Amino acid sequence: MANQMKNNAITSRDVDFAQWYTDVCKKAELMNYSSVKGFINYLPYGYAIWEEIQNYLNKRFKAEGAENVYLPMVIPESMFAKEKEHVEGFAPECLVATYGGGKKLEDPLIIRPTSEILFSDLYKNILNSHRDLPKMFNQWCSVVRWEKTTRPFLRGSEFLWQEGHCLFETQEAAEENVRKFLEIYDDCGRNVLAIPFVKGRKTEHEKFAGAVATYTIEALMHDGKALQSGTSHYLGTGFAKAYGISYLGRNNKLEVPHQTSWGVSTRLIGAVIMVHGDDNGLVLPPYVAPIQVVIVPIRQKEPGVLEACEAMKAKLIEKGIRVKLDADDSKTPGWKFAEYEMKGIPLRIEVGPRDLANGQATLVKRVSGEKELASIEQIEEEIPSVLETIHNQMYEKAKAHLESSIKDVNSVEELNAAIANGGYARMAFCGEAECELKIKEVTGGGTARCIYKDLADEGTACPVCGKPAKIIAYFAKAY
Amino acid sequence: MANQMKNNAITSRDVDFAQWYTDVCKKAELMNYSSVKGFINYLPYGYAIWEEIQNYLNKRFKAEGAENVYLPMVIPESMFAKEKEHVEGFAPECLVATYGGGKKLEDPLIIRPTSEILFSDLYKNILNSHRDLPKMFNQWCSVVRWEKTTRPFLRGSEFLWQEGHCLFETQEAAEENVRKFLEIYDDCGRNVLAIPFVKGRKTEHEKFAGAVATYTIEALMHDGKALQSGTSHYLGTGFAKAYGISYLGRNNKLEVPHQTSWGVSTRLIGAVIMVHGDDNGLVLPPYVAPIQVVIVPIRQKEPGVLEACEAMKAKLIEKGIRVKLDADDSKTPGWKFAEYEMKGIPLRIEVGPRDLANGQATLVKRVSGEKELASIEQIEEEIPSVLETIHNQMYEKAKAHLESSIKDVNSVEELNAAIANGGYARMAFCGEAECELKIKEVTGGGTARCIYKDLADEGTACPVCGKPAKIIAYFAKAY
Repeated sequence: MANQMKNNAITSRDVDFAQWYTDVCKKAELMNYSSVKGFINYLPYGYAIWEEIQNYLNKRFKAEGAENVYLPMVIPESMFAKEKEHVEGFAPECLVATYGGGKKLEDPLIIRPTSEILFSDLYKNILNSHRDLPKMFNQWCSVVRWEKTTRPFLRGSEFLWQEGHCLFETQEAAEENVRKFLEIYDDCGRNVLAIPFVKGRKTEHEKFAGAVATYTIEALMHDGKALQSGTSHYLGTGFAKAYGISYLGRNNKLEVPHQTSWGVSTRLIGAVIMVHGDDNGLVLPPYVAPIQVVIVPIRQKEPGVLEACEAMKAKLIEKGIRVKLDADDSKTPGWKFAEYEMKGIPLRIEVGPRDLANGQATLVKRVSGEKELASIEQIEEEIPSVLETIHNQMYEKAKAHLESSIKDVNSVEELNAAIANGGYARMAFCGEAECELKIKEVTGGGTARCIYKDLADEGTACPVCGKPAKIIAYFAKAY
Repeated sequence: MANQMKNNAITSRDVDFAQWYTDVCKKAELMNYSSVKGFINYLPYGYAIWEEIQNYLNKRFKAEGAENVYLPMVIPESMFAKEKEHVEGFAPECLVATYGGGKKLEDPLIIRPTSEILFSDLYKNILNSHRDLPKMFNQWCSVVRWEKTTRPFLRGSEFLWQEGHCLFETQEAAEENVRKFLEIYDDCGRNVLAIPFVKGRKTEHEKFAGAVATYTIEALMHDGKALQSGTSHYLGTGFAKAYGISYLGRNNKLEVPHQTSWGVSTRLIGAVIMVHGDDNGLVLPPYVAPIQVVIVPIRQKEPGVLEACEAMKAKLIEKGIRVKLDADDSKTPGWKFAEYEMKGIPLRIEVGPRDLANGQATLVKRVSGEKELASIEQIEEEIPSVLETIHNQMYEKAKAHLESSIKDVNSVEELNAAIANGGYARMAFCGEAECELKIKEVTGGGTARCIYKDLADEGTACPVCGKPAKIIAYFAKAY
């Protein structure tokens, strides 16, 4: 059957998952490697996925009162140095400009790896009174981090993201913001990417450089590795104090605001590829797919076939569906089936003379290969619910994979066995960096992805150091 | 009358237009100066104007078949050097990174001042056959040009723009693309920004570094200076040859494609400010205004007033209108009138007890100060056409200013007199760089903005050198 046809140019996932991933990225024309080492070109088919994610998040952000801004792409080195933990975290991966207009710069400029500092500098200048709070600014931009090893969408010298930076009067309001935007990211997974996440607070060792607390969403890839997919930070008052942000409070005294930041990046495209893809290529969730439906005419030279396809295309466009009709008669239907399966288009509609005679078209779902018939006459009424069904199937499939991967363990040996071939293990431990590092060493790279549960004094001992366990964390190997 | 109340914090245009401009940019909170010298922060009210421009252009671009991509923000110095005219044009204003990850880079990286080179490098790798043509890629990003003197939105070390880069089989197809996108920019002026442009080809002296021909749209600011507001270039085959782009043509021979590029930037925000603004502040055209309508309650504590305002707001939002209700009772209506006039909100609706009793609200147009009454019951039906009227009034006003400024002249003395206090002069000349430079010197900065007409042999002599005149050009002093 055509929908099971192998696209031989793609390495099988089980043979070499890393190679499969690169093959899919390139063959599906999501990206290609730029001649600038470590940097990629985001091609139309990949960039369009990002635009759909942007559309969803922009609406959600704006509904919460967040406003978009754009700040400089460079940070003077002298300004960068003020928040100690932050600068220690980022300094090793900075790209630094030292010449401008042919002259040596007195104060070198760091290409932004993240913009906490620039937002702090802005807020310092525009915050006056408690009436100005809350402030919720968001920025869509690219950032640069000088990475030694790179992988498309997952780790690169430059990536696209959004970074929200907010100020609040109270710790409570700031923490609520942190949770709210983590929920929005989680919703984006559930409603748009068809990706379920494990979510929670990061351990002290894994949190963001300069944050009081970091919250994360972690997805599970097909190979069993975790992928940090978005983070939301409570920054406390550290940046505000380091950069001199204050305001006249309700009691007429100068107060320091509580700060948050939150972001997701084009990493989400990597998550979509590795959660849903299969040996035939990409499988795109309908709500981010640049093309949601492809119409393939069968025996297209026979009377009425192309006309019916054109009419169908027009009706679907009218309905707001992103549709492509491939009427290129130099390619066979079989070639097209394989091509659009590789490209991950969620739904294929086949229309041939026999379908026309019966008044029905054949629908084929990319995720399952299932075929069904639909009335040609009213097809535009049916497709939206078919796409919704596909979305739900994809989400449930990913959720079953995630949930079946989680194992509760009580020792480092059990943990090691549980995550050796992928998946999450939940284990109680003391939460100290030393024990995490030991776990990482023993398991060959397993890390605490996030906290599942804070423990009251339950008398459990940390299996590494023997001290009282304070948290139960999710451990996994991760990208 | 409230709508003629002076906002004293803004310098009058006739006293000091440059200061008026800066005052408006800052007071209306479109931007503020960043602590990074030469760079600005695009604040929500300014950035939202850019988002509306993006929305319009993205739809138009996509309808023409252009696809969005994202390419690296840096260009290796070794790659930059290949197109000679191009590199000579841009080298003096480059920001250059020389360190990455703590190590000196072997090949320094130029922060992109424009991306002809990166697109050429991409096309070299993905173009195979004439079947791949045309290719029309567009990118929304920021670029860096190391400027000595900067002005918000007009000239800065970093600005936001879009850059389209396309490939075609033939010169004719490429030139058609160049004209088509110039028309789209012109439409954006007419339909969105309410700005009429003078448009045409640039002279040899003024064209883009590396282009065969540059086309431009030029707006006329209130002070009579021209502002280059968008350009569309026919690049010929120069970049393609320098960067090795070729394809297998219809005759099975290797061919070199014809290239174009076109772009507009956040300069358009500067044009909006300087074309429409007045001594009370900003005057925003309705289709880019972040807030199109502001509702100001009068004697808002009286029964029914706030409820009526809330109901009106809900109905207008439902209609897709961007509306703000200011119900802050610590501010007087008069204060609000002045504030929202300064912010340039196209339409104010006043609702007080007397209006309620009559079932009518008072509408006040920012552009003219005109007042009219509208039925409260069905106000959502009326507002869209009121906004359209405002748009048309603004466009016609700007067009009258532009057209009345154009003078036909026959000598450098006449030209000098014609543009001394602003406006355009049309004069026939030989089209040579030397004569342009002489005109610039004599007029204290007047330049050829674009060509009005190519001349056949009409026997006119260039008033500078006496050789035969070849073109009639628009001259003006420009930003």
